[in-house]
Amino acid sequence: MRFFSDNAAPVHPAVMQAMADANHIDTAYDGDQWSARLDAAFSAVFGRDVAVLWVATGTSANCLALASLVQPHQGVICHREAHIEVDECGAPGFYTAGAKLMLIEGDGAKVTPETVEACLNGIRNDVHQVQAAALSITNASEYGMVYSPAEVAALGALCHNRGLGLHMDGARFANAIATLGCAPADVTVNAGVDVLSFGFVKNGGMGAEALVYFDPALADAARYRRKRAGHLQSKGRFLAAQLLAMLENDLWLTNARSANAAAQIIAGAAAERLLHPVQANEIFLRLAPAEAAALRAQGFDFYDWGVVDENWGAARLVTSWQHTETDVTPLAHAIAAL
Amino acid sequence: MRFFSDNAAPVHPAVMQAMADANHIDTAYDGDQWSARLDAAFSAVFGRDVAVLWVATGTSANCLALASLVQPHQGVICHREAHIEVDECGAPGFYTAGAKLMLIEGDGAKVTPETVEACLNGIRNDVHQVQAAALSITNASEYGMVYSPAEVAALGALCHNRGLGLHMDGARFANAIATLGCAPADVTVNAGVDVLSFGFVKNGGMGAEALVYFDPALADAARYRRKRAGHLQSKGRFLAAQLLAMLENDLWLTNARSANAAAQIIAGAAAERLLHPVQANEIFLRLAPAEAAALRAQGFDFYDWGVVDENWGAARLVTSWQHTETDVTPLAHAIAAL
Amino acid sequence: MRFFSDNAAPVHPAVMQAMADANHIDTAYDGDQWSARLDAAFSAVFGRDVAVLWVATGTSANCLALASLVQPHQGVICHREAHIEVDECGAPGFYTAGAKLMLIEGDGAKVTPETVEACLNGIRNDVHQVQAAALSITNASEYGMVYSPAEVAALGALCHNRGLGLHMDGARFANAIATLGCAPADVTVNAGVDVLSFGFVKNGGMGAEALVYFDPALADAARYRRKRAGHLQSKGRFLAAQLLAMLENDLWLTNARSANAAAQIIAGAAAERLLHPVQANEIFLRLAPAEAAALRAQGFDFYDWGVVDENWGAARLVTSWQHTETDVTPLAHAIAAL
Amino acid sequence: MRFFSDNAAPVHPAVMQAMADANHIDTAYDGDQWSARLDAAFSAVFGRDVAVLWVATGTSANCLALASLVQPHQGVICHREAHIEVDECGAPGFYTAGAKLMLIEGDGAKVTPETVEACLNGIRNDVHQVQAAALSITNASEYGMVYSPAEVAALGALCHNRGLGLHMDGARFANAIATLGCAPADVTVNAGVDVLSFGFVKNGGMGAEALVYFDPALADAARYRRKRAGHLQSKGRFLAAQLLAMLENDLWLTNARSANAAAQIIAGAAAERLLHPVQANEIFLRLAPAEAAALRAQGFDFYDWGVVDENWGAARLVTSWQHTETDVTPLAHAIAAL
Repeated sequence: MRFFSDNAAPVHPAVMQAMADANHIDTAYDGDQWSARLDAAFSAVFGRDVAVLWVATGTSANCLALASLVQPHQGVICHREAHIEVDECGAPGFYTAGAKLMLIEGDGAKVTPETVEACLNGIRNDVHQVQAAALSITNASEYGMVYSPAEVAALGALCHNRGLGLHMDGARFANAIATLGCAPADVTVNAGVDVLSFGFVKNGGMGAEALVYFDPALADAARYRRKRAGHLQSKGRFLAAQLLAMLENDLWLTNARSANAAAQIIAGAAAERLLHPVQANEIFLRLAPAEAAALRAQGFDFYDWGVVDENWGAARLVTSWQHTETDVTPLAHAIAAL
Repeated sequence: MRFFSDNAAPVHPAVMQAMADANHIDTAYDGDQWSARLDAAFSAVFGRDVAVLWVATGTSANCLALASLVQPHQGVICHREAHIEVDECGAPGFYTAGAKLMLIEGDGAKVTPETVEACLNGIRNDVHQVQAAALSITNASEYGMVYSPAEVAALGALCHNRGLGLHMDGARFANAIATLGCAPADVTVNAGVDVLSFGFVKNGGMGAEALVYFDPALADAARYRRKRAGHLQSKGRFLAAQLLAMLENDLWLTNARSANAAAQIIAGAAAERLLHPVQANEIFLRLAPAEAAALRAQGFDFYDWGVVDENWGAARLVTSWQHTETDVTPLAHAIAAL
Repeated sequence: MRFFSDNAAPVHPAVMQAMADANHIDTAYDGDQWSARLDAAFSAVFGRDVAVLWVATGTSANCLALASLVQPHQGVICHREAHIEVDECGAPGFYTAGAKLMLIEGDGAKVTPETVEACLNGIRNDVHQVQAAALSITNASEYGMVYSPAEVAALGALCHNRGLGLHMDGARFANAIATLGCAPADVTVNAGVDVLSFGFVKNGGMGAEALVYFDPALADAARYRRKRAGHLQSKGRFLAAQLLAMLENDLWLTNARSANAAAQIIAGAAAERLLHPVQANEIFLRLAPAEAAALRAQGFDFYDWGVVDENWGAARLVTSWQHTETDVTPLAHAIAAL
Repeated sequence: MRFFSDNAAPVHPAVMQAMADANHIDTAYDGDQWSARLDAAFSAVFGRDVAVLWVATGTSANCLALASLVQPHQGVICHREAHIEVDECGAPGFYTAGAKLMLIEGDGAKVTPETVEACLNGIRNDVHQVQAAALSITNASEYGMVYSPAEVAALGALCHNRGLGLHMDGARFANAIATLGCAPADVTVNAGVDVLSFGFVKNGGMGAEALVYFDPALADAARYRRKRAGHLQSKGRFLAAQLLAMLENDLWLTNARSANAAAQIIAGAAAERLLHPVQANEIFLRLAPAEAAALRAQGFDFYDWGVVDENWGAARLVTSWQHTETDVTPLAHAIAAL
């Protein structure tokens, strides 16, 4: 069984069906009837008017968001292990025309007002140094940990006071909300987030993410930037249909709860091995090399994730919307039996 | 009946089926089994080893191609009405970090060795002026006209002699090949083309184009640039599956022949009104305003395309893979009856 | 005698002296006493508070100005023969991260509200096309013609109505003012200009131009962009000293008047050959090839400037602050004697 | 007495004289007689053919060099305290169109083959991560320490093996050579350096640095990039004249030896306070706040440079070509007397 990535999971049947249903002639680009319904559908989720752009990937969503918040000569504060820093091949530099990522540390790939403040205070206020203009946080984080509404609100207040925009990379936003149980607005717009990359691909979609602007005015330039980046698909109705299908009956939450529940089953069997609390659908374990090999020999696939110490390696396992209790119980037993 | 754009057409059922068939767990990004088959499948089409990258849009294909051929301080020669100039919101400038499009004129949105040479000769050979490093041509052109192998070869020879790379925007490459009846290699690699944007979305695909590098070494940097542009989709297998379905049994050619045949039926009824020879699936007509209104009143939709003179407007009609003789005959009759 | 370019002229002795006077220890970058006096000195020239940045070249002044007015996905309208289009090696694309120059025609390298309006009206108001956000005009123009306050004001009103910023490339601003006899504010800020590249290098300076922001708030980001472009010289006092010397006793006007007067002497002798009215310090003549050769044989150097027709070539002659009546009279006689 | 920065020092009289001597009419840009002599003059310094471009600032020299070595999707390894990272306001991102600086640690702002290798080994070899394509080192370093020929050669060999270009930021290259006593080639081209930013402004120049390409072919694109960055000054003869004056009779070495000797006098008096060995013209001391205040009260000015611990602050003092033994002895005594 594969626990490499939620990216490897299939597309949810309801999404496939929605795409099939959209397969008739309609207006090109984003002039179609599905795209026209997006703003309203997401505004219902957040309880206020939002402007939403579909894009195919999380990288483009994140980087369009950053380009909305900073000028080329400015900077974006983020965690050293943020996806935008580690896994996007410099896309933020491309989209922002060279803005700088300013890296800070923190357990579980999370940042705090203290670490952000320290970063800001380390920047000389003169033209020789890049000045920060935004903060980007990931919820759930790259280590599967969740920011609470209060934590985000504290960061949001700091950003507001220091003149920074606040972006949330929500590649696994659904998993975070499934854990938090709060209203989506509470951990975003009510807490000071300006733009959210709301991910669906890892959660049962095929190739559509929602770039959510809580200040619709910011979205206007982003529409041009999306086109200019080659992300305005001519048959955009198939992206919009995916997003609408995911919102229908809260499929996004249902899927995320499944993934999270599967992760908890594994976590329960591996409690003493956990490198980070399991708060979403990612499990980071210490495994001795022989143990990792033993699990793989039983057919469980996953990524190594660096080294803990001379005896222990780290492994990352990711569950997806498709994983049921039946699917993951054998893995849980196998870990418990190591 | 809608003749706005082939972009508005549905996705071909075989493509939908291929996507459904790809809907199980597999490796993410471009590590899947479908993506792995692309190079071989396109190498068979071109009769030599090519390197192929899938991307979602023609704009990203075109601009990744240009970024492979020019440095930021250089220029790309193209027709004044080229899609890269007119309809991509400055994407070439974004992808190339500011390279300049150098515009030339020509009937039917086609360029000739003479116009290219004149453009080159108009550039002072000093550091104050941007020096051209590539030529981009569109086949079929933005006015639905086709470059023959001999025409491309003449441009290719010029490019070779003057040190320019040669890009072909093949958003409607299939329509061109359907008309030319030649081997795809004859109008591309054998004629000096370095990179081809091979379009499928307008021809029955959903959201996948093939960026074809005839020099596979050029493709290496493009893979990084694709990721950096946010175009490396995590479920890329669905893009690869589309392309493979289009190549299967030459569906791409079958579809293009249908669209072209439909265009010929309309062209036949409008011979005296044609603004350009109809060589692919686009028809440009002169229509008096009252005539245009009359056609629309009968349910035929199309774009106005500027003004011919004080009496005549121009209209663009585009046929798609889905249009049958039955579909277009009423339009042909309506035009003939004007 | 050389009439190639005012760039080739010597530096005025008063400027050299001012640089010598600044040659003692002082604060680095722009923290010195000379730089500190710039805003006040230029505010006096314009009769209102302006913010001024020194930079070494007209190209950097122009392009920093454009970057202040447009986003990367936007465009700048300018004349087809504008220096920013023709002679800056794509610097606007570099500084603006890919914004597009939108070219219009016009006699004497001047634009009018009609040509600008036509350009704007030719841009479809959708995300597929780059939208204009600024207009850049050159005063005196690349053909040595002058915009009057009323002409600039008409353009300024149009820009204001259509939401465009207005930049003036004033590489030869002094020559324009010398001709117009108006207050510098009348043809700039009072007429709607947002940013002026106020040139001094062609007028007796060595390597210092003034980038004048009539809205000081716009200058803040420009200070970072200047540093980021490598244009914040560490011994910036020598640039500031040049500018202050040029303002002292209106040396800039005195120099420009000398150059203009010299040009008039030549123009008077060449009245029937003039390709453009001589309104500043550039003279564009038609000369048969044999005539050009004859002048050169007498020791007068100048650039060919294209071809008028099969019989006539064009020549550009530029006078400088250093040219006296005595210097140019022999050339005037030589032309008259052709 | 000011020990803030060698940037604050006056220009050497020989440089001023050379500029005065160049003040007559000559060809504009880099077509003049002084610029024409640069390649030969620097080739003599390095004992082989080099191509040299003058530019006004170290930031532009560094960043043009980096843009010669990396593509926008690639990275440059450098020390965390490298000038390009800390003090150039993101200029590398601007000039390279978004390439990434990859930061490593090391005493005295120096890197080693081990730290570079570790950085390289930490980069996954896939398209999700930016791949390094160059290493940039500073000699003398930002903490006034010197790389020996053997140290550079070890880095050069590593770069060669791993496919990286090697850039040396030589803002204080003269000071390094004065200390090393080696041939300039031994610590650059013979040790694998591809491009050198050879600084003169801090060493008695006014506004001219030499960008030295050991592979002249690399310089060709740089000439366009220099123009495009607005760094091709129209009166470039004044920059070339500065550089030639500095090379004449090895003035650059004489000046650097003076500055270094002055630094040694101070260092000798502060041996127990030194935070780094003094190998060039910068001295980093620990000073208690009261001690710093005491020195300032005696008229010695310098920058605080962070904090050592709760008791000690750090101070940076920089000597210049102008400082004589007489000048610095009072400071040495004052430090000794603390």
